Amino acid sequence: MITDYSQRLVVQEVSPRDGLQIEPVWVETADKIALIDALSLAGFSRIEAGSFVSPKAIPALRDGEAVFSGIQRQPGVIYTALVPNLKGAQRAIQAGADEINMVMSASQTHNRANMRMSCEQSLAAFVDIVQLAQETSLLLNATVATAFGCPFEGVIDEDRVLDIVETYMDLGVTGITLADTTGMANPRQVHRIVRRVLTRVAPSALTLHFHNTRGLGLCNVLAAYEAGARRFDASLSGLGGCPFAPGASGNICTEDLVNLCHEMGIETGIDLPLLLDQSRKLPALLGHELPGQLVKAGRNCDLHPTPAGLPL
Amino acid sequence: MITDYSQRLVVQEVSPRDGLQIEPVWVETADKIALIDALSLAGFSRIEAGSFVSPKAIPALRDGEAVFSGIQRQPGVIYTALVPNLKGAQRAIQAGADEINMVMSASQTHNRANMRMSCEQSLAAFVDIVQLAQETSLLLNATVATAFGCPFEGVIDEDRVLDIVETYMDLGVTGITLADTTGMANPRQVHRIVRRVLTRVAPSALTLHFHNTRGLGLCNVLAAYEAGARRFDASLSGLGGCPFAPGASGNICTEDLVNLCHEMGIETGIDLPLLLDQSRKLPALLGHELPGQLVKAGRNCDLHPTPAGLPL
Repeated sequence: MITDYSQRLVVQEVSPRDGLQIEPVWVETADKIALIDALSLAGFSRIEAGSFVSPKAIPALRDGEAVFSGIQRQPGVIYTALVPNLKGAQRAIQAGADEINMVMSASQTHNRANMRMSCEQSLAAFVDIVQLAQETSLLLNATVATAFGCPFEGVIDEDRVLDIVETYMDLGVTGITLADTTGMANPRQVHRIVRRVLTRVAPSALTLHFHNTRGLGLCNVLAAYEAGARRFDASLSGLGGCPFAPGASGNICTEDLVNLCHEMGIETGIDLPLLLDQSRKLPALLGHELPGQLVKAGRNCDLHPTPAGLPL
Repeated sequence: MITDYSQRLVVQEVSPRDGLQIEPVWVETADKIALIDALSLAGFSRIEAGSFVSPKAIPALRDGEAVFSGIQRQPGVIYTALVPNLKGAQRAIQAGADEINMVMSASQTHNRANMRMSCEQSLAAFVDIVQLAQETSLLLNATVATAFGCPFEGVIDEDRVLDIVETYMDLGVTGITLADTTGMANPRQVHRIVRRVLTRVAPSALTLHFHNTRGLGLCNVLAAYEAGARRFDASLSGLGGCPFAPGASGNICTEDLVNLCHEMGIETGIDLPLLLDQSRKLPALLGHELPGQLVKAGRNCDLHPTPAGLPL
């Protein structure tokens, strides 16, 4: 713990896409827009606002165009969209996304299961997307999914992760995300890989995307921060589950992460009370409880009244 | 992250006492004994097996004597009991506890609410208990509750925590626990306080007791470990809630902590599959789900079968 905590930790909100995509209930377009508009005022520099994938594959997000055209954009916020292929990228550009996020798994098996193609096919598609984007002002982020472990293949070779990062950089992307897709990372591994990746990628261009599936999400954030990473994805109230583990947590919880930072004196620029207000609305919107802890416990400064009738 | 991870992290199990004490359902004495007997084979060096408080105050643990006389003690395991006063200590000795644990809050308000007496009255009672214990081979642990924050008073002066530790040492206790009773600690604060306390207390005599109320429990364990702490309380499946925050987590989860350690290469000596077997039995025993994550997600090495019909 010789870390310099004066460096801002940048929190990027993913609930409107990565959070909502596996929800079984349909969230109305107007409710999605209201959520994004509220989050836009909380101080995030990036919000993952939707995806442009097949409506059959992810019906919950079939209204991507309407969402992007309905939101009130705030200056300084990058509104990003997930795209699986060239067609998705064309739709995202048409809809006015500031950035697109492309995803490939380090694990061949996971990529085939998740993207329905091999890693080589994914990379070939990325080339077409990059070509398309270079005619526009679109920002390009590329994600290494299962970077810290695969639920089918197990351990992922760290050299392979570094090679993929190298390939992404050579493609000309503006940002790279390392994703712990099913929560298999541990802090020591995270520290080691982040240190290696930061020899190739600037901290401002690297995002860490952790899941809390095995309860280690925030430990991994701290380890990555101590290794020099500065940008982290998180999801309001921990919205977004894990298809491989019923009942387990998925994304790390935005307000729990922000609270951790603020209690440690790490600046985030995020309005925590605003987040908590939005988090409180989610159970009614989605019909179930969410994993976020802070919204249940309150902040440290939310003191309880002294009980009456205490002995002197 | 310049930590030496070769040092063993000692996990101490508290579910039979701190876990069960707020459960509304009655757990049969035989079931408590079966749980403790199973845990005794998992490699713990200390198990909090019961308490000797007023049965009116904590009816769930009114069978402390029967539990202590029924368990099959394993060599190398210390069976400890919580006691609130001299009468409780006498009962614990009678029942055959190896160690008693006395608790006082750093916060006057919390001590009055929790122990129904002032800190000064608590300390006076401790003197009587220590006197009683010195005629026996009983081990004596003293806990500083709300050491990292109080839900009524807020911030706790670190010098006060150090003063209480000093007082406990002067009393002649064999062990000291710093407890984050309502989950208000953060890793930076933990690191600072542990470093200070370890100038006065040997690592082998210091226990850290964290709650996961705001999701920071395992982060705080790592910070304390990095500061030199070696002994940590945890509760099977995170059993044991927080009376101040409905729906929030209480104790950190034993198997999640053990998994974190093993994934990082930190030795615990704990049999993780055995813990998971026991954890799986708790929902049926208690009639509700528990916060533990690993039991839902499985270990990293519990791979999923490759889905059929993947594209090549």
